[in-house]
Amino acid sequence: MPFHVDSETGRLRRVILHRPGLELKRLTPTNKDELLFDDVLWVRRAQQEHDIFAALLRGRGVEVRLFGELLAESLEIPGARSLVLERVFDEREYGPLATDALRAVFDGLSGAELAEALVGGMTKREYLERYPAPNSVRLHVMDLDEFLLQPLPNHLFTRDTSAWVYDGVAVNAMRWPARQREAVHFEAIYRHHPLFTSAEVPFHHWSEPHGAHPSTIEGGDVLVIGRGAVLVGMSERTTPQAVELLARRLFATGSAHTIVALDMPKRRAFMHLDTVLTMVDAETFTQYAGLGMLRSYTITPGTGGRELSVADNPPEHMHRAIAEALGLGKIRVLTATQDLHAAEREQWDDGCNVLAVEPGVVVAYERTVTSNTELRRNGVEVLEIPGSELGRGRGGPRCMSCPIERDPVD
Amino acid sequence: MPFHVDSETGRLRRVILHRPGLELKRLTPTNKDELLFDDVLWVRRAQQEHDIFAALLRGRGVEVRLFGELLAESLEIPGARSLVLERVFDEREYGPLATDALRAVFDGLSGAELAEALVGGMTKREYLERYPAPNSVRLHVMDLDEFLLQPLPNHLFTRDTSAWVYDGVAVNAMRWPARQREAVHFEAIYRHHPLFTSAEVPFHHWSEPHGAHPSTIEGGDVLVIGRGAVLVGMSERTTPQAVELLARRLFATGSAHTIVALDMPKRRAFMHLDTVLTMVDAETFTQYAGLGMLRSYTITPGTGGRELSVADNPPEHMHRAIAEALGLGKIRVLTATQDLHAAEREQWDDGCNVLAVEPGVVVAYERTVTSNTELRRNGVEVLEIPGSELGRGRGGPRCMSCPIERDPVD
Amino acid sequence: MPFHVDSETGRLRRVILHRPGLELKRLTPTNKDELLFDDVLWVRRAQQEHDIFAALLRGRGVEVRLFGELLAESLEIPGARSLVLERVFDEREYGPLATDALRAVFDGLSGAELAEALVGGMTKREYLERYPAPNSVRLHVMDLDEFLLQPLPNHLFTRDTSAWVYDGVAVNAMRWPARQREAVHFEAIYRHHPLFTSAEVPFHHWSEPHGAHPSTIEGGDVLVIGRGAVLVGMSERTTPQAVELLARRLFATGSAHTIVALDMPKRRAFMHLDTVLTMVDAETFTQYAGLGMLRSYTITPGTGGRELSVADNPPEHMHRAIAEALGLGKIRVLTATQDLHAAEREQWDDGCNVLAVEPGVVVAYERTVTSNTELRRNGVEVLEIPGSELGRGRGGPRCMSCPIERDPVD
Amino acid sequence: MPFHVDSETGRLRRVILHRPGLELKRLTPTNKDELLFDDVLWVRRAQQEHDIFAALLRGRGVEVRLFGELLAESLEIPGARSLVLERVFDEREYGPLATDALRAVFDGLSGAELAEALVGGMTKREYLERYPAPNSVRLHVMDLDEFLLQPLPNHLFTRDTSAWVYDGVAVNAMRWPARQREAVHFEAIYRHHPLFTSAEVPFHHWSEPHGAHPSTIEGGDVLVIGRGAVLVGMSERTTPQAVELLARRLFATGSAHTIVALDMPKRRAFMHLDTVLTMVDAETFTQYAGLGMLRSYTITPGTGGRELSVADNPPEHMHRAIAEALGLGKIRVLTATQDLHAAEREQWDDGCNVLAVEPGVVVAYERTVTSNTELRRNGVEVLEIPGSELGRGRGGPRCMSCPIERDPVD
Repeated sequence: MPFHVDSETGRLRRVILHRPGLELKRLTPTNKDELLFDDVLWVRRAQQEHDIFAALLRGRGVEVRLFGELLAESLEIPGARSLVLERVFDEREYGPLATDALRAVFDGLSGAELAEALVGGMTKREYLERYPAPNSVRLHVMDLDEFLLQPLPNHLFTRDTSAWVYDGVAVNAMRWPARQREAVHFEAIYRHHPLFTSAEVPFHHWSEPHGAHPSTIEGGDVLVIGRGAVLVGMSERTTPQAVELLARRLFATGSAHTIVALDMPKRRAFMHLDTVLTMVDAETFTQYAGLGMLRSYTITPGTGGRELSVADNPPEHMHRAIAEALGLGKIRVLTATQDLHAAEREQWDDGCNVLAVEPGVVVAYERTVTSNTELRRNGVEVLEIPGSELGRGRGGPRCMSCPIERDPVD
Repeated sequence: MPFHVDSETGRLRRVILHRPGLELKRLTPTNKDELLFDDVLWVRRAQQEHDIFAALLRGRGVEVRLFGELLAESLEIPGARSLVLERVFDEREYGPLATDALRAVFDGLSGAELAEALVGGMTKREYLERYPAPNSVRLHVMDLDEFLLQPLPNHLFTRDTSAWVYDGVAVNAMRWPARQREAVHFEAIYRHHPLFTSAEVPFHHWSEPHGAHPSTIEGGDVLVIGRGAVLVGMSERTTPQAVELLARRLFATGSAHTIVALDMPKRRAFMHLDTVLTMVDAETFTQYAGLGMLRSYTITPGTGGRELSVADNPPEHMHRAIAEALGLGKIRVLTATQDLHAAEREQWDDGCNVLAVEPGVVVAYERTVTSNTELRRNGVEVLEIPGSELGRGRGGPRCMSCPIERDPVD
Repeated sequence: MPFHVDSETGRLRRVILHRPGLELKRLTPTNKDELLFDDVLWVRRAQQEHDIFAALLRGRGVEVRLFGELLAESLEIPGARSLVLERVFDEREYGPLATDALRAVFDGLSGAELAEALVGGMTKREYLERYPAPNSVRLHVMDLDEFLLQPLPNHLFTRDTSAWVYDGVAVNAMRWPARQREAVHFEAIYRHHPLFTSAEVPFHHWSEPHGAHPSTIEGGDVLVIGRGAVLVGMSERTTPQAVELLARRLFATGSAHTIVALDMPKRRAFMHLDTVLTMVDAETFTQYAGLGMLRSYTITPGTGGRELSVADNPPEHMHRAIAEALGLGKIRVLTATQDLHAAEREQWDDGCNVLAVEPGVVVAYERTVTSNTELRRNGVEVLEIPGSELGRGRGGPRCMSCPIERDPVD
Repeated sequence: MPFHVDSETGRLRRVILHRPGLELKRLTPTNKDELLFDDVLWVRRAQQEHDIFAALLRGRGVEVRLFGELLAESLEIPGARSLVLERVFDEREYGPLATDALRAVFDGLSGAELAEALVGGMTKREYLERYPAPNSVRLHVMDLDEFLLQPLPNHLFTRDTSAWVYDGVAVNAMRWPARQREAVHFEAIYRHHPLFTSAEVPFHHWSEPHGAHPSTIEGGDVLVIGRGAVLVGMSERTTPQAVELLARRLFATGSAHTIVALDMPKRRAFMHLDTVLTMVDAETFTQYAGLGMLRSYTITPGTGGRELSVADNPPEHMHRAIAEALGLGKIRVLTATQDLHAAEREQWDDGCNVLAVEPGVVVAYERTVTSNTELRRNGVEVLEIPGSELGRGRGGPRCMSCPIERDPVD
């Protein structure tokens, strides 16, 4: 079975990363907040750091697929190309006067050029230097340096846009406008790229419905903790209604049998569950000291005609609820002892956002010294990567990786 | 022809207002910004002020229809009721565990009760006092005083949600979440209320498509300036793509032949065009001193296979472009002479947001003394209404009225 | 003893109010937040409302002194005039090139003209229309409509700038720059106006030291609860160090023997203690439902060489601590029963900010219907005044009054 | 003459730097904005980067003095110690109940310990772990993790707190509370440290007056451009009145004869003049593309009884005004050609904030690739230092250095 993610810490076999490119050069002090970054990055250095990350994974036997290549290759396939172009060039976005003309221009690009434009964005000025301007009010009112096509710098965080859960993958309805267009790229890849269409064993695939409703979910909030259980954070970006919809899907296909949903604080600092809680082996989690204990809900398939069952767990049973979903007596939770200010700094620097390559072996940023030391003291092997630039987007190794094949773990 | 709006200042014959109710009692210092109000209102006094407004209009021979009554009557009609309930109780909003149960509960209400709940909102506490709770994660995570059904205090501004343009009406895609649910109420009324279904002469009716795209338009930005011309403000809330889509509709039905689109500053203070520029008779406008001259675009039906034609007018030709659309040599623009601070205050208090009941006779707030005096000096009859409470929502007489029948003016 | 304030609810004999004037016409949507107002006011109406307030007090036998008149009269006295001019026209504010010239120009005005300018402010444009411009960088870089002399719209709230506590008065170090200049006006009045200099019985008078240190206190946080006790709120605007300094003063002169300091939430909504808690008779308080119980500190004169003694009271003993300071077995606390949203609205509208004219008789805004009804149900006579405009500054009858003579109450 | 700074680019002989320490570990996502940082830093790496900076300067023959050592040594001297302790432990800051006790505790520390506490700050928890608690309201109301003594992370930017101008030094009145306490440290050093008290040739020394007035100036806005001229930016942090006061001082001592004051945008991005404009040799400046041309004022000693003369230069004469102050026919201004977004990024990364070690040789961050390349293309030697961590405080090599001895340049 080629594509499946059966755990958080089983041997990682294949993963999608995105090497930083033009889209990160687009960040400025003025637009960074809207684009969800806290600072601008030195892109050349960020690429070097990312190359070290990819090389480290390859060195551990992981097959690394680059999102940019998968997208470019997909866009050579007519079905994928039309899917993307139809979705991006919509009259409600560009108006009836410009939409067809723009779509035609971008349809004239090669797959690689089109992928670059879709991810890296294009200003009106850049467009006009190469192509004729449609006579459109929508375009007239734009400044020359405004983006005709918004860049998507958060593609760096491949974890969020799609999420593999056991034998299926969800392409997610993203919370903020700055990331919503990412989803169609992954939809095109999973539906049309030969890597996936040639899979001998089919996998479940679905797209979360878009629209004005706040039914959003992001992969950083989804932990495939193993044994048929899933841990989901209801955060600033993932809503309870989306969790219920996910539960219905996973139970209908039999992909999972239990979802534990944590009621997280709705704050940017606790952006995704994996910024405060991740796994390091089959029974062990690393948790941010400032998270505290959270109320949780255990969702299981319904009985007696009801679609789903929901049990409400008080905050003090948070760890017990997770253990029960895993069929374990208890789980182990590691939290570094440090003062409140230091803990807040390390969480900010993604000290908890580790990516396991196998049970007990995780990738972390080198800068989160206290957290890494705590893990080592508890027998975890920590592989460090630099993150002076990468970390400015507030995402660590787990955020920057989308496993598409990972073993279970006992 | 019973329903049509042929001008901004021709004799006003029928209008929809909304008398303030429960929804305004919902405003608090904490939620007012999200609900687009600058302050809380004393509702009893606001009702008195609104009653004075309605009585004044009736005294001038205008038939006043109250939105709350139209909605309640519509919700007695199965088609309207199911349209609204389906749209409001969507799984992406309430999750699969609660949606059907909630819809069933609200379907059990009378039309009047349902209208009150839909407009006035309902907290989780109020719901649980009356109805059994579905076992849903979506509801579990809510605080007791959170709104299960958001109140819609901006229904007060009936101008925006739908807009009559000559022989048709658009139900608008609203800019902010706090107002988006208003549209389905007007759609239900126009499609199902006997007042409209029994019209002997049919009218054009369309709903702007909803979705995640920023193709939004609000009636406060749409001035039916007469003689087949329409003046639209591209503001914080009305986008150029929506204006192009409107032009296509109006030209297709022959309802209008020219649209002049003004490129307004995108700021809350200049929320809608009618907060800075309105008409007082067939050739005369009242304009806020701080508006300045704006770049504009004249849109006409296309030739030679093109759907629309667009001409770009420099800022200094703003008034000329409007005059040309009206087939006039020039228009008259009134602006009170006052210092910058005073002018900014009066615009904030809706000094320009007058509603004409016939050419040269307008309704204004009594507090905008300088603007009213300026109008009178220029021969306009100004009918004053109190607005100490009503005005806190930043909307004046034009904002609070949706003409559905108004004569042309020569 | 002519000047003394011995309680919160004893017969009120003399009070300083400020009739709204030019300074409130200065408020605009752009500058209102910096000037600490939530909305602009219709000044003519605000004056009418204020006149009703003053007439009501006079009708109850209270002598009303207007701050504007006191200031104008004081500025005819050389000592007061030079005190104010030296403090306002400081080189660190206006630079060495303009300061002397500006001071000389303003020194040429009559007392009434100078008071108007100092309170109402003056733009650079207004200055240049009347006086020659000094050749100063400080002035060159200003826009014409910037204020050369900032207006002081918060003089409306005479309660805060100075505070009478038993037989003395403190001129306060105000928290925000928008109010700091108010203090020098009161200092000039108390030091130089014949009303005060001719007092047969002297009173304690002191000015809190200004500077960059956050040792600020405002009269809205100071309740002279009687029997030698004082209740102080440590709020957004009043700091613990200022409370300690106040205690030292009051104990040194023997003016008071106990201070109870409440640790309030530091939020604009809870701006001053008197916006959430005031007295209606010798033993009864009206308290905002959302305030909750607060930790408090009882400060008394020290023993054994220590200057002050401090006792720490847990939140649940808040009312007991107040009662003990008063030498009472218990106090009575009235709080209207209403839902959370309604309570928040009424607090915002100053439902608790009542001014007693004698025990059991208070002045309140008419708009705070629920609070007023609650008081009446408990035997309090409520005298209502309109506040549609006045209330936009977030201050009620207590905020707008500075008692200078009030009887004790048993 | 041992201490003097006669230019921006003459041979640099002595400089004060501050090696990052405890104070930077205090930065958290929650407090960073108030402490004027855009991100938290990895302090160990920041120290390494700073060591490289210091080593590079030493390698070019510059004597580097570390601020931390100078402060610790000064605090062994009674006069310096009491100056600092009196200023820091003020009753208006700590209240009468705690101030003396706190001062006594800190007076018991060695110079090094005291310097560490003053710069690195101390939480209430840390204090209570070592010392007994005074019974003070001021301390009672603090949370355990609040800072009893605020850390001063901006000491990293030694450029701003004091500024040498030819034969004198000003200790500056800093704009924001987060930096105001820095000044007393430099005052203690300059007044009491043997390095300065033993100077054979005396230098002018003055402290800018503190207080509530906005008469602030920071060294990053002061460029000693040579030949008796000074270029000052009137920025978010430096006001015109402070510039006039500086001019009066410099002309009185004969230290300078001309000041050119630029009217800069008042925005954080243009924090100080040296973030957008610095010198690379006697006649050449490097300027941010987004700065544009600014209105300026040339201040010279007054004639005919006037203290100062002011000439107003229109924006287009900005470079001419600087050249004239230098007695040059023209100056050379280098600006890299790049798109608007890229230019904004490089300015943010301190691309213009270079430190000359001799004419035509400057230190810059390695990350500002385009700016550095532009300088090299124009014959400037650029010495690069890493700044992945250091740069997060938005300050480059010039910001991090306080020259105390630098040659003139012809």
